[in-house]
Amino acid sequence: METILHFERAEYAARLAAVKAEMSKRGLEILLISEPPNQNYLTGYDAYSFYTPQMAIVALDREEPIIITRGMDMTSARITTYLSEDSIRGFPDNYVNSIERSAYDYVASVVQELGGEKAVIGVEMGGYYYSARAHADLVKALPQARFEDADLLVNWIRLVKSSAELEFMRQAGLIGDAVIKRVIETAEPGVRECDLAAAAYHQEISGTPEFGGTYNSSVVHLCVGERALAPHSTWTDRPLSDRTIINFEVHGTRRRYQVNVSRTIHLGKPSADYVKLADIAIEALNAGLESVRPGQTCSDVFAAFHAVLSRNGLEKDQRIGYPLGIGYPPTVAERTASIRKEEKTVLQAGMCFHMMTGLWLGVQSVTITQPFAVTEEGYEPLTHTPRTLVVK
Amino acid sequence: METILHFERAEYAARLAAVKAEMSKRGLEILLISEPPNQNYLTGYDAYSFYTPQMAIVALDREEPIIITRGMDMTSARITTYLSEDSIRGFPDNYVNSIERSAYDYVASVVQELGGEKAVIGVEMGGYYYSARAHADLVKALPQARFEDADLLVNWIRLVKSSAELEFMRQAGLIGDAVIKRVIETAEPGVRECDLAAAAYHQEISGTPEFGGTYNSSVVHLCVGERALAPHSTWTDRPLSDRTIINFEVHGTRRRYQVNVSRTIHLGKPSADYVKLADIAIEALNAGLESVRPGQTCSDVFAAFHAVLSRNGLEKDQRIGYPLGIGYPPTVAERTASIRKEEKTVLQAGMCFHMMTGLWLGVQSVTITQPFAVTEEGYEPLTHTPRTLVVK
Repeated sequence: METILHFERAEYAARLAAVKAEMSKRGLEILLISEPPNQNYLTGYDAYSFYTPQMAIVALDREEPIIITRGMDMTSARITTYLSEDSIRGFPDNYVNSIERSAYDYVASVVQELGGEKAVIGVEMGGYYYSARAHADLVKALPQARFEDADLLVNWIRLVKSSAELEFMRQAGLIGDAVIKRVIETAEPGVRECDLAAAAYHQEISGTPEFGGTYNSSVVHLCVGERALAPHSTWTDRPLSDRTIINFEVHGTRRRYQVNVSRTIHLGKPSADYVKLADIAIEALNAGLESVRPGQTCSDVFAAFHAVLSRNGLEKDQRIGYPLGIGYPPTVAERTASIRKEEKTVLQAGMCFHMMTGLWLGVQSVTITQPFAVTEEGYEPLTHTPRTLVVK
Repeated sequence: METILHFERAEYAARLAAVKAEMSKRGLEILLISEPPNQNYLTGYDAYSFYTPQMAIVALDREEPIIITRGMDMTSARITTYLSEDSIRGFPDNYVNSIERSAYDYVASVVQELGGEKAVIGVEMGGYYYSARAHADLVKALPQARFEDADLLVNWIRLVKSSAELEFMRQAGLIGDAVIKRVIETAEPGVRECDLAAAAYHQEISGTPEFGGTYNSSVVHLCVGERALAPHSTWTDRPLSDRTIINFEVHGTRRRYQVNVSRTIHLGKPSADYVKLADIAIEALNAGLESVRPGQTCSDVFAAFHAVLSRNGLEKDQRIGYPLGIGYPPTVAERTASIRKEEKTVLQAGMCFHMMTGLWLGVQSVTITQPFAVTEEGYEPLTHTPRTLVVK
């Protein structure tokens, strides 16, 4: 069966070495990786199978990671990873959604096989796919081991992208541009919101003629009219009216690397006040972007953005950026650095963020945003659609 | 701001009463509900906001549930739930992805406000959105409370659908039929796999002229050629060849109620052996369906299905069905009854399942399946596409 890897073996080796170095530093002998993007980063594993237990294991004294999946998903491991057969393990199907059996007992048995009964074991305590039950079952099955919280250990390493990863981020950006274009073309009075969303999804998955797309790690947001004030709404069946706001967030996703981007469409002529608000939002976004360069902190970027708002008597206390990279549901956000007031993370070339400067202010809202990579000199926009309010 | 509820208030009240009755039975004073479908079931809450902490609280001595979201998502609670303003709470944005602050401290403060410092508190230990960290933070913040595992308490109540819910399941089924039709029409040699997937997504979201669709809770599976042996693969950029298998799983999703359904397309003339395999798969599926009626166990249905396989010298040890209903990523499956060998759950009218009788046998695979509702007399198919192998 043919294996499809998206990176050179040397790149996977470098990632693994970085993780092992951090494990050594923290005194961890074994790392249990439950987060799908982290599993993908270290092994290449890619399948929509993480809704049943799935674990990658890195042991300091074992060269290759081990991936444990549901038995039927071992085929996906053979197709998408560089791992040898001995590093691909599957648990029987009667462990799935079972009251009597826990797949984490199976995970524990592999840890024991690695000699890890008494090891110091890192686990991703705050991960999306490491439930309270998973942890309780593991602790019970490995009573002599010491568990340490290693949440975000891999995520922080992922924060700085390699040049090969940046290439996928740029391809994702091209898809993102195609999706924005498609949404703008499709939005007309009378079109049902669901049909507009359908067009966005079609373009996200189809991608461009050169670069096919794949599923995004969250959902298209299409916040129309009154619902434009709810940042995480989706869509209804209703036809668009002659005069309304459409705040939308779409994605470009390439080989699981994802770019998020938002725009606002105003159907019908906007009020002068609204145009003024959009102008401020764009000026603030641009000020934030212009402040990006290695050595600046996330907080510095927030300050540059917010100075424009303050000068105009406005305020935003939410974060204005989150890191982008490998995404699986429920979100692409890496849960590490946020661009916000109090965040002291120092920017480095290769980090990628979505500068999500949406403003939801009482009865008005506007969402014009920019995904970007930090470069040696400043920033590189990952999408190229002009940062403007779209009036149709 | 207009509130959009998809069910009568009396239906929400009946659901809440059923949950409170079960809480009383188990001696739980407070139930913390972290699973998005359970939150939706009890309050109507619907937004793609569950990737940050989100909790519904049911207290035995309080009439309404409380929903806690990120501050910016309170707007979605006002739009999508029947809750009064006092029952909608939001935590500040600096709790999001923070190292210093835990949103579960905020949740604990609401529990304290309800007088729950020393309460017996049910939590969904195995839920997708209840991490090891969430539990640890809550236990620490409420040291005098007693925590009990109440995982699936709400899920088991959701298993039997009301007539209003069944109506949405039927609408979802109509969308599912439209998606199958679209995929079959679009699949041609030379079409890129991503363009075929894009067509499926377009139809899922667009729905039908009467019933708009919404995002599914997992992903379209499009397993082509060799990858047809990997059940949870998605798609590539490659064009379809003249002669290949396409195993696909698509969805109809209506107001978050979801139907899953699979078919196999054979591009080019299939071998006689393959046609024989498909015939067996269909016969086994039909035998399983014909055995469905209230009073039968899940195990009985599995046996009826498997008798056909056994007679033909085949075997399947995976489960062949999971419950369908309200879905949010990562899956619609309710994690309660599975149709499999050892499962003694007794069928009742109103339960809905996806009979997922895909066969992955060495070098061959076929996926022809049927979502259905249990009725008083037997079963009602939720999609109406004929159960056949599609040859193009």
